[in-house]
Amino acid sequence: MNPTITAFERSPDRGRGLARDMRIRWALEEVGQSCDVRLVSFAAMKQPAHLALHPFGQIPTYEEGDLVLFESGAILLHIAQRHLGLLPEGANARARAMAWLFAALNTMEPPIVEYGMSKLFERDKPWFEQRHPMLEERVRTRLGQLSAHLSDTDWLDGDFSLGDLMMVTVLRRLDGHGVVEDYPHLAAYVARGEARPAYQRAFQAQLAVFNRAAAGPATPPSPATG
Amino acid sequence: MNPTITAFERSPDRGRGLARDMRIRWALEEVGQSCDVRLVSFAAMKQPAHLALHPFGQIPTYEEGDLVLFESGAILLHIAQRHLGLLPEGANARARAMAWLFAALNTMEPPIVEYGMSKLFERDKPWFEQRHPMLEERVRTRLGQLSAHLSDTDWLDGDFSLGDLMMVTVLRRLDGHGVVEDYPHLAAYVARGEARPAYQRAFQAQLAVFNRAAAGPATPPSPATG
Repeated sequence: MNPTITAFERSPDRGRGLARDMRIRWALEEVGQSCDVRLVSFAAMKQPAHLALHPFGQIPTYEEGDLVLFESGAILLHIAQRHLGLLPEGANARARAMAWLFAALNTMEPPIVEYGMSKLFERDKPWFEQRHPMLEERVRTRLGQLSAHLSDTDWLDGDFSLGDLMMVTVLRRLDGHGVVEDYPHLAAYVARGEARPAYQRAFQAQLAVFNRAAAGPATPPSPATG
Repeated sequence: MNPTITAFERSPDRGRGLARDMRIRWALEEVGQSCDVRLVSFAAMKQPAHLALHPFGQIPTYEEGDLVLFESGAILLHIAQRHLGLLPEGANARARAMAWLFAALNTMEPPIVEYGMSKLFERDKPWFEQRHPMLEERVRTRLGQLSAHLSDTDWLDGDFSLGDLMMVTVLRRLDGHGVVEDYPHLAAYVARGEARPAYQRAFQAQLAVFNRAAAGPATPPSPATG
């Protein structure tokens, strides 16, 4: 039986693959496991039925038989431990791959999220002009360190692993901000991730959800343009 | 042979157990594994020798034979997988414990860190009075959700696990801010963690490092008070 994941009924990223279900879709594609997707509205995410799956009212969740998981990092790790393809052979190499998973989520993602939220929600605040460059500098410090590490390797530690999968999705949150482009090693790294057939299939699947929602009754095509 | 971890030569928390080596010290105490501790200065953390262990120039690191790890979450997971005591029996329960580890690091810690950094580094900025309450509200939203989950259980999912260990250390970052105190379930939860003998031993060990540094040549006792 397929696992079931949850995803946004209408993703705020407009189908650019930045929502966190993309990580799980991509991982499942890498290991050749199909899944069922249950779409949830923002209102439903805050209701008891969803909160019983995810105490913080977010997506994605993951249901597989009796098991219910939340947190994209934990779901990714679970998939990697149950299937071949996302963790290397050898206990030490596996531990190092997991270190990169945590680095993506706990060292790289927080300053990147802050930077993105500042642009989205604080652009009209009186402090934006002064504060935003500080946030960009924090992001650039981390990007520079990561870029130094990737200067002569394709992936973070040996072959592609769950650490790379997570790191690429975290770096993609900077898509459209013109920052990653200043770090050629990182831009190439993200492109390598995006070029993987499993990534492509996952990306198309989440885009199809957004396109169906956008074509649905909430925003009917106007007679003038449709 | 003992593993070796790194810790601040002089912790900016002044020995309150908020630095991230505390997580590893506590975990090792829980499983009965001693360790060697190598202290590093802020200057040394940015030098090539330390960057070879930790690409982002932080502490803690973990060395065990040929294995070098960074990221407190990854080190904690590694310890829990090698020793009994921090992960439950049963694959599903283990996966759920790991979900709480990620929740502590990726859902709870980022807004808590932002809140703390705002108080530390932005108090004199013109935007502090307007912006800080927003950050506190973000933290309180997460605390309220976590508190609801802990309203009738001692630990996050069954017995004490690595998820609780990490969550308690993350909540302790709010120590002295007068926020957790508004959530009696959370305050009791943190107190339960702090009451564990392994926590106490780890806390004393890191405090001893700070006290030795504070008594050292960098700040000699003045003749008047010494």
